[in-house]
Amino acid sequence: MRTGIATVCLSGTLKEKMQACAIAGFDGIEIFEQDLVTSPLSPEEVRQMAADLGLTLDLYQPFRDFDSVPEDLLAANLRRADAKFRLMSRLGMDTILVCSNVATATIDDDGLRAQQLAALAELAGDHGVKVAYEALAWGRYVNDYEHAHRLVEMVDHPSLGTCLDSFHILSRDWDTAPIEDINPEKIFFVQVADAPKLSMDVLSWSRHYRVFPGEGQFELAKFMGHVVRAGYTGPVSLEVFNDVFRQSDVERTAVDAMRSLIWLEEQSAKWLDANAAAASNGAGTATGAAGAKAAGRRRYPMELATLPQVAEPAGFNFAEVKAADTAALETVLRQLGFEFNGRHRTKDVQLWSMGHARVIINELAPDAASAAPAIAALGFDVDSPVIASARAQQLKAPAVPRKSQANEEVFQGFSAPDSTEIFLCQGNPDGTAAWTREFGEGLEVPSGARNAVIDHVNLAQPWQHFDEAVLFYTSALALEPQPYAEVASPTGLVRSQVMQTEDRAVRLVLNLAPLIQQDGARHKTYQEHIAFAVDDLVATARAARDRGLEFLQIPANYYEDLDARFGLEPAFLATLQELNLLYDRDAEGEFLHFYTATVGSVFFEMVERRGGYDGYGAPNAPVRHAVQYDHLHQLTNTITY
Amino acid sequence: MRTGIATVCLSGTLKEKMQACAIAGFDGIEIFEQDLVTSPLSPEEVRQMAADLGLTLDLYQPFRDFDSVPEDLLAANLRRADAKFRLMSRLGMDTILVCSNVATATIDDDGLRAQQLAALAELAGDHGVKVAYEALAWGRYVNDYEHAHRLVEMVDHPSLGTCLDSFHILSRDWDTAPIEDINPEKIFFVQVADAPKLSMDVLSWSRHYRVFPGEGQFELAKFMGHVVRAGYTGPVSLEVFNDVFRQSDVERTAVDAMRSLIWLEEQSAKWLDANAAAASNGAGTATGAAGAKAAGRRRYPMELATLPQVAEPAGFNFAEVKAADTAALETVLRQLGFEFNGRHRTKDVQLWSMGHARVIINELAPDAASAAPAIAALGFDVDSPVIASARAQQLKAPAVPRKSQANEEVFQGFSAPDSTEIFLCQGNPDGTAAWTREFGEGLEVPSGARNAVIDHVNLAQPWQHFDEAVLFYTSALALEPQPYAEVASPTGLVRSQVMQTEDRAVRLVLNLAPLIQQDGARHKTYQEHIAFAVDDLVATARAARDRGLEFLQIPANYYEDLDARFGLEPAFLATLQELNLLYDRDAEGEFLHFYTATVGSVFFEMVERRGGYDGYGAPNAPVRHAVQYDHLHQLTNTITY
Repeated sequence: MRTGIATVCLSGTLKEKMQACAIAGFDGIEIFEQDLVTSPLSPEEVRQMAADLGLTLDLYQPFRDFDSVPEDLLAANLRRADAKFRLMSRLGMDTILVCSNVATATIDDDGLRAQQLAALAELAGDHGVKVAYEALAWGRYVNDYEHAHRLVEMVDHPSLGTCLDSFHILSRDWDTAPIEDINPEKIFFVQVADAPKLSMDVLSWSRHYRVFPGEGQFELAKFMGHVVRAGYTGPVSLEVFNDVFRQSDVERTAVDAMRSLIWLEEQSAKWLDANAAAASNGAGTATGAAGAKAAGRRRYPMELATLPQVAEPAGFNFAEVKAADTAALETVLRQLGFEFNGRHRTKDVQLWSMGHARVIINELAPDAASAAPAIAALGFDVDSPVIASARAQQLKAPAVPRKSQANEEVFQGFSAPDSTEIFLCQGNPDGTAAWTREFGEGLEVPSGARNAVIDHVNLAQPWQHFDEAVLFYTSALALEPQPYAEVASPTGLVRSQVMQTEDRAVRLVLNLAPLIQQDGARHKTYQEHIAFAVDDLVATARAARDRGLEFLQIPANYYEDLDARFGLEPAFLATLQELNLLYDRDAEGEFLHFYTATVGSVFFEMVERRGGYDGYGAPNAPVRHAVQYDHLHQLTNTITY
Repeated sequence: MRTGIATVCLSGTLKEKMQACAIAGFDGIEIFEQDLVTSPLSPEEVRQMAADLGLTLDLYQPFRDFDSVPEDLLAANLRRADAKFRLMSRLGMDTILVCSNVATATIDDDGLRAQQLAALAELAGDHGVKVAYEALAWGRYVNDYEHAHRLVEMVDHPSLGTCLDSFHILSRDWDTAPIEDINPEKIFFVQVADAPKLSMDVLSWSRHYRVFPGEGQFELAKFMGHVVRAGYTGPVSLEVFNDVFRQSDVERTAVDAMRSLIWLEEQSAKWLDANAAAASNGAGTATGAAGAKAAGRRRYPMELATLPQVAEPAGFNFAEVKAADTAALETVLRQLGFEFNGRHRTKDVQLWSMGHARVIINELAPDAASAAPAIAALGFDVDSPVIASARAQQLKAPAVPRKSQANEEVFQGFSAPDSTEIFLCQGNPDGTAAWTREFGEGLEVPSGARNAVIDHVNLAQPWQHFDEAVLFYTSALALEPQPYAEVASPTGLVRSQVMQTEDRAVRLVLNLAPLIQQDGARHKTYQEHIAFAVDDLVATARAARDRGLEFLQIPANYYEDLDARFGLEPAFLATLQELNLLYDRDAEGEFLHFYTATVGSVFFEMVERRGGYDGYGAPNAPVRHAVQYDHLHQLTNTITY
């Protein structure tokens, strides 16, 4: 699959954009007109630079508001087109995107439109240019790709073809199956964009909220499957208008974009395999999905590369926190019921465990740049760390090699978008891990919580990299994004995105904190945490209290409200309040949990899931945020009432 | 008018919110349930604190999902209500907001609903509580205030009344006139919120994008006019869910909120005056608007306070820039054609003028905190500086007294939300200003640009204070907000909001820069500017070039595109390109302009308006942003292609 990207997806100047696209590995780019108009580079310099960078210039875009106009406007539009065709020849480009008219269309007549497009095609042909005509979702008269293609067929000119844009098609819920009926010679270009499903006007949605494939909710693999079956072999190019991407680091966004196409290519091949029986077009013979798989992948004119295949991770292998002064972390882990298993024989790290929950404390040098306690790394159990690592690298995850001595386990690792380090490990079926040998012999599991595991980890994401993180964990780690929630905090709404495995062995929560918590403002309260699941939370809490644990203090008002909502047994309610436990209930089951005080930027949670409860106590999140804020604020606020 | 605000509008803890509301001068507050539930303050402590702060506790809210449910759920809901009524008695509160059911309603039967609301009213009555029933815009069966009030009338219980919320009414475009037919005894509460007109689902719109009155596009004065005419005398309380306000400084947001109610009160009185003839209810006799005015303001049960009245400003009196090293500013002003008029006789400021455009250069101490050249202040010509200043102070604008010596003019001033200082001046009818005497005698106007004036000033706004700024200039300076535009820049979209007088003598452009330009990231390119209008831009540009002015360099590609779009005369196009002039044209006229290079964070623009052109060359803004970015970036970027 030939990969492409429109320059409008990225921040910076045209030169910076082109350099970033080359570094990210794109085959070609679309030049967004405004990027050229505002550039000091001459068309000839752009052409030379693209050649030097190994980028093809696939599409000049967009040419707006051409068709369905009266005579005088048509003449002006043809003059404008002539200037652009001349410019394209200086750029060495042969395809231009022409969008269906939004602003100046006044005549709704397909005959006239075809006539006008024919005139445009004729002029384009004179310049050796091909016109890819696209139905905008909000086009005045033409807003459906099938309508646009009917016009192309009416004109029947070698210089006029169709451009298919997934956003304009999927945002309007047009059926994508008829794509297969289009003559592939007549599909001049394919643009892809994903988007969250929002109920707002389609123009605003398109201009601000598009995302890269895998970061939204469109069925892009299916769309691409139809395109591939149609026999299209040209570039598959991203056109993503996104307010955040336009503000983010250009090289990083280009890599995120490239990752989305690599992932889409794989998903498209999978969709084709799974839907081989239904194929109505393309090369090869349909023999059912099973048959197709047995006979190897069906062949289509477009070649689809594959990635090393991984299953979803089987669980958390460990979580790692770091600190220069580790005393506070050690204390809270011990109070929670963790046991100290020893120090590593060559590295400055400690191992702590409780049942199958393992926490590594990484002892930083006292003069480390970020010396305060924080979550540093997560280890995941995968079938094959080597295959999983190979997949991640093909998905352009930045590798983080683990230094190791002879006879020590080497973890394959990479860096997540929020710079948490992710390690790929191989756990034993009984829940133990071979590498713990490096910390000494005879690791004892505390009797109180033999079944303890890491339930979930909650990581804060910078606003520039939230969508990138979703795609990253989806593609590199095979986690499934769930619909996101928003919870109130004293400093604004916190967007909370759960990524999990189907069996729930791995649950990762990505939180997008309010801006005020990210920019060094007066309240910097956003914290991350690791949650452990136990069988008997009340017993765990009592034991922790006896060991002196500092619980997050839950206000009495909370328990009154809890009672008003659920009508709990008085004794049970009293136990909850006595131990600072939080409670939630839904149709599937119950959830009990408590939080520790915060150490640096990290705190811990203990949870007990009863029945089929599958959530995270979201109704309690505002209480947690408010108490943490109040606590932090009391430390810094000298104004008293 | 009694003023109120819901705690959900603000950031922080309940205690911080209450303190901020008291400081801002609110009469009372609504307690949002979650703010109480998450607070360590007991209900009794909240009650005492409110009393100490002089705040009434006007409304407990919200009680959700009560009506239209089956028997068993009704029993649970009544139990829940009973708990809340008991809580309210501890808080000393007597009114609760009950919203029409969204989530659990299953039975659409007004008879049953009335029966259930009657049961609730009966229970409330036992606790001395009044239930204010409100139709949510997205209520399952009840989403229209008239429907909600019919239910109140069916029940006919002293403890059940109506809550009117401007958002739920205006977002659905319900007619507001029938409000006047409601028995005022039965209007238990009134909530107000404004909003921009967005086409999105009403729930998301409501939960994220509400703004304070005067910051959106709803006809709130009319809504309030009907409420006043109905005879309502209770609190008028803000309930504004806004993602930005929830992240902003609580005391500042509370002042912004209070300003919006003061302004709404005035606008409501004006609407009532203007629509006196149409009044169908309330006290007094309708004798037509003129008659009502002649006879003094009509009286209604609710008293509406008035503000000192000001007309829109007649023009810019001056613009002030500041710098520690003023040499670069002096050079560019001289090159533009400004004349140095002398130094102030007692202060370290210089006066420069060109026609009626006056620029003050404020010479900062070399060790000033922000020593780089920047826009510091704007002076506006108003009829009466004293009245305008009194009005601004009543609108809670922070005063900035100007230090002055004997026999010198004293400017009344206040600080705008972005901390630009705004001064109120009295200009002479001939465009001169008396205070210039303080800079010496014999100010000569350069012959080349006798008619030069300040055309517009463009100020960058921090994201937290954009809406506040719109209301500020609307209410304190009588500028009219125009529909906003978004223009592309290399670091993201820039939101651009024009505020202007009807005669266009004052044009202020508020730009909301992309976040990346505000948070100290690598490209901090956002700049502010002052634009001057002249009669002959080409001559001005030639003269400036001869004086050595460094123009912002416009790429050749721009002129090619300009030609493709407009088909300009070759000689004219050549002149534009030769002088780095930008060009725009619309149905009303033409616009020519050029920019200087940037000095510190300020640059200058020269414009010529031909015919009725009323814009700012928005299609050219991306070129300006790109060239400025490229220029800044070249200074810091060592990577070369």
